[in-house]
Amino acid sequence: MKDGLWFSEKFTDHIEFLYDVRRIIYDGHTEFQHVTIADVMVYGRTLFLDGKMQSAEIDEAVYHETLVHIPMLAHPDPRKVLILGGGEGATLREVLKHNTVERAVMVDIDGELVELCKKELPQWSDGAFDDPRSEVIIGDARKFVEETDEKFDVIISDLTEPLEEGPSRLLFTKEFYTSVRDRLSDNGVLVVQSGSADIYYHEFWVDLVTTLSGIFPTVRPYHTYVFSFNLDWAFTLALKSEDFELPEPPVLEQLLKARGVEKLRFYTPEMHLAMFALPRYLKDDFEKGGRVLTDEEPFIWDA
Amino acid sequence: MKDGLWFSEKFTDHIEFLYDVRRIIYDGHTEFQHVTIADVMVYGRTLFLDGKMQSAEIDEAVYHETLVHIPMLAHPDPRKVLILGGGEGATLREVLKHNTVERAVMVDIDGELVELCKKELPQWSDGAFDDPRSEVIIGDARKFVEETDEKFDVIISDLTEPLEEGPSRLLFTKEFYTSVRDRLSDNGVLVVQSGSADIYYHEFWVDLVTTLSGIFPTVRPYHTYVFSFNLDWAFTLALKSEDFELPEPPVLEQLLKARGVEKLRFYTPEMHLAMFALPRYLKDDFEKGGRVLTDEEPFIWDA
Amino acid sequence: MKDGLWFSEKFTDHIEFLYDVRRIIYDGHTEFQHVTIADVMVYGRTLFLDGKMQSAEIDEAVYHETLVHIPMLAHPDPRKVLILGGGEGATLREVLKHNTVERAVMVDIDGELVELCKKELPQWSDGAFDDPRSEVIIGDARKFVEETDEKFDVIISDLTEPLEEGPSRLLFTKEFYTSVRDRLSDNGVLVVQSGSADIYYHEFWVDLVTTLSGIFPTVRPYHTYVFSFNLDWAFTLALKSEDFELPEPPVLEQLLKARGVEKLRFYTPEMHLAMFALPRYLKDDFEKGGRVLTDEEPFIWDA
Amino acid sequence: MKDGLWFSEKFTDHIEFLYDVRRIIYDGHTEFQHVTIADVMVYGRTLFLDGKMQSAEIDEAVYHETLVHIPMLAHPDPRKVLILGGGEGATLREVLKHNTVERAVMVDIDGELVELCKKELPQWSDGAFDDPRSEVIIGDARKFVEETDEKFDVIISDLTEPLEEGPSRLLFTKEFYTSVRDRLSDNGVLVVQSGSADIYYHEFWVDLVTTLSGIFPTVRPYHTYVFSFNLDWAFTLALKSEDFELPEPPVLEQLLKARGVEKLRFYTPEMHLAMFALPRYLKDDFEKGGRVLTDEEPFIWDA
Repeated sequence: MKDGLWFSEKFTDHIEFLYDVRRIIYDGHTEFQHVTIADVMVYGRTLFLDGKMQSAEIDEAVYHETLVHIPMLAHPDPRKVLILGGGEGATLREVLKHNTVERAVMVDIDGELVELCKKELPQWSDGAFDDPRSEVIIGDARKFVEETDEKFDVIISDLTEPLEEGPSRLLFTKEFYTSVRDRLSDNGVLVVQSGSADIYYHEFWVDLVTTLSGIFPTVRPYHTYVFSFNLDWAFTLALKSEDFELPEPPVLEQLLKARGVEKLRFYTPEMHLAMFALPRYLKDDFEKGGRVLTDEEPFIWDA
Repeated sequence: MKDGLWFSEKFTDHIEFLYDVRRIIYDGHTEFQHVTIADVMVYGRTLFLDGKMQSAEIDEAVYHETLVHIPMLAHPDPRKVLILGGGEGATLREVLKHNTVERAVMVDIDGELVELCKKELPQWSDGAFDDPRSEVIIGDARKFVEETDEKFDVIISDLTEPLEEGPSRLLFTKEFYTSVRDRLSDNGVLVVQSGSADIYYHEFWVDLVTTLSGIFPTVRPYHTYVFSFNLDWAFTLALKSEDFELPEPPVLEQLLKARGVEKLRFYTPEMHLAMFALPRYLKDDFEKGGRVLTDEEPFIWDA
Repeated sequence: MKDGLWFSEKFTDHIEFLYDVRRIIYDGHTEFQHVTIADVMVYGRTLFLDGKMQSAEIDEAVYHETLVHIPMLAHPDPRKVLILGGGEGATLREVLKHNTVERAVMVDIDGELVELCKKELPQWSDGAFDDPRSEVIIGDARKFVEETDEKFDVIISDLTEPLEEGPSRLLFTKEFYTSVRDRLSDNGVLVVQSGSADIYYHEFWVDLVTTLSGIFPTVRPYHTYVFSFNLDWAFTLALKSEDFELPEPPVLEQLLKARGVEKLRFYTPEMHLAMFALPRYLKDDFEKGGRVLTDEEPFIWDA
Repeated sequence: MKDGLWFSEKFTDHIEFLYDVRRIIYDGHTEFQHVTIADVMVYGRTLFLDGKMQSAEIDEAVYHETLVHIPMLAHPDPRKVLILGGGEGATLREVLKHNTVERAVMVDIDGELVELCKKELPQWSDGAFDDPRSEVIIGDARKFVEETDEKFDVIISDLTEPLEEGPSRLLFTKEFYTSVRDRLSDNGVLVVQSGSADIYYHEFWVDLVTTLSGIFPTVRPYHTYVFSFNLDWAFTLALKSEDFELPEPPVLEQLLKARGVEKLRFYTPEMHLAMFALPRYLKDDFEKGGRVLTDEEPFIWDA
């Protein structure tokens, strides 16, 4: 362990990860969270929020392509897209790759963070903030969803886990998802980044799938390993439609081409399908089901 | 970080993992390697070889089911199986679940380790060592393969990575795999545990696939996330036959039933297929290809 | 940081020490505390109690010679000595070096620990337990002091810090020290190992000195750096007599010779005097004084 | 261990210290060394050079008062003082407290570091750089000593340990000390900060004392515990005069008063004397003696 700065991140009280920090770019508090941006050995430029690795140069594409292209390709013609959270701008970047998109609205509560990311993580947004189709609204995602009259074809929940004191506490509840559903157009698709998918800890994901299943006719969990999280990561797809079938790779290939989606680093049509396959221990736990998360009893993440 | 014992494992010089040790069961040297067996928080009973987590109670099934059932199901009627390495006995356990098996030979160089595992990790072998179909040979895998006249339907390479001073240095080379191929029956199948599959480090895997492709007509890499390795893990399937197609889930389901394979904790037919899907960065690197590993210039693992 | 076992010890929540463990000798619970005995790089054979380094082969002599010879040399003719705690037997070993001693009683609550130390740390006691002058009583130090009729010339408090749930909670209070004083003969001397003496944390010591000053006419704090504690360490001398002057080195030299005290690794007459010198920040804090510790409001150590 | 930034410092390969970093003030390279300035929990504002804790707000006074007042009080009338190294300006601050001083020259090779310290560690120099008696020369200490014609009453070597690639490699050799001696006035006094004094590692100190003893008629090692170094720290006093006796505390008290030395946080006349007392294991090793360090075979610090 070289002398000097390391970033420590615990996964439960019993596992510590230590990352070798090459250079601190920014370390401070916004109104909402503690932000560290650093150049980290192996990971490259990295963003940490409240002490948790959020995205890293080496593989932010894995997370963002998985979060975005699965729901975008589940909709026949996504024109209007809403992103909840997504401060780094990489979710927006992937959304805008689909040439069907006419309008992409991103609502993030932390304006200081968005500015920091524009400045220090420019390759994440890669010009997306300047795209005329983009609108960035600094404000509370819940308030926006409850007050807007607009309808969206795809809604992407790219929010941090619901920490006790964090800004996302009431953004993973039955009440909130009911409002979200009402903001989706007829064939609308929702995706929710859903935390850890691993064998030790997937309770939050099971609860989310249970909660969403009470509101949407079609709910499909999917997952992929993210190197910089040291974990298998969970996502949940929810559709207003009852009809859902995973398209075959050649169809996906054609669709990507038609929409002009390029510069993919992780996503392949084969991986698209593969991510919906579940290990037995997850299948079993999804069958048992979890708890419906409500405003009164939300999930509190304590990792 | 609680006061007391922790196990430290580095992944390159720049990332440290620290695990909270509840109880040391064994810590010492055999003739070939340093062995630590401990009860570790979150992971349960855990085996470390030369300072690297080898298998943990919480998810040893993920690794062992993946290593075994993919090749076993790629063979129409596996009667004779050879395991190279596999000291814990869990690979043997999974092999014996297939009722087609008439003889399973395991060759491990470290007899002291095998005895330690029998005593301290009994749930790994779960009686497999006492099965009349099993034979355990303490000796060098290379020597055994080169000297035996026997032929096998499935050969499973469950060997530790080729560390500079470790016992597996010459067990991942063109010369060795040529001998291995000659010990396979006509429809014979080889599987090789192939180290890390992740975005940062998969050079060893690419070299292995390149090396095996010069010897076998069909070579297929597959991979899955293993929680206790903190990594996506690589495997390589190699067949003497040119005909290979991944079977559909219902066929796999039926095959498992016919062979009486039970008590699976991770494997599902859907995961079987999913594990062959590759991220773009891996596809690209496999297309470029790697180096042919030879006795003269073997791969030296330095993580 | 090498792969493998390390012992982690925190000093406050903000400083972590990690020690490279070569071999675990014992790790388990007695009725009273968690005990780890290990061979540690640099430190040699080492005893940890409840996660804190207690004594290490490399410098246990520093602590034990300092704890014992200062009070023993402050008494003109120590015949009967009482040790409270002292499980390892090294305090007893140093006491018995003085040929004036006719009887040395050691009262330790943890009989299992005493047996473990005899077996695994034999060089600590170095035969002291077999000396006909020694008597070891397994029991509560407070109960012993309150119930015995015996008087002692020197009483040595070699007790662990008063952790919330630990066995030493009520062994650092006014009530207890009053009983202790009543068990001292006319020129009797008490010494108390008093925890950390360093600039960041010496509150316990200041409170102890204040508490003892209400009971004994002469109270003198002294201190020395202990390598294996990574800290300056505090001791407090308390005398029934009002007359006290530090003897000059030649006098000490002569006294050691007369009493046959040999095999010293740390102690010198010059260090004897030096340990009573105090940095300004300590002098200032002792002048201000602390809190009188009582059974009702004892000191709770939370490091 | 809280999530977030920690500073890791090893003491040999077998002991790691980790410090909880509250805020990074500066982290970068000068021409000569890696500099980190941070607010560290417990320690306050802290300077690290090449990964080693150099001085910390909580106790920089311990080191600097010990380094400066011992030699200054060993000279009857110090008017001209030379500081080698001393980038933070705290050594200069303590020197200027003596109203006898007419001129204080500080020679530090690292001008960028001096500027950083002025800006980010202003309480270290506390105005010393603006004192009309001060002159700061950015340059090589050896070159300065060898080229100047000036004579000094006190010379203070406040240099970092001689790392393989560091700037101090040839500043601890017989050749250099011979030049230093020639720059001292008749009753001149040299002091050398001499690294670790602890039981495990004091070889550098023993070699230094041996080297200086070949050049100066009077050489006296002294030491004190420095909390932020986690170590007992070594200093060596060397005088051109053969007559040397440690003054008694009342004499020192008077001298401090006469010279107007104030605002001391650590130093007391009693500590002055105490620091010259040596544990037996050090006495024994000084008697055996060490190696004479030369330009050809200097000491290379590899901690």
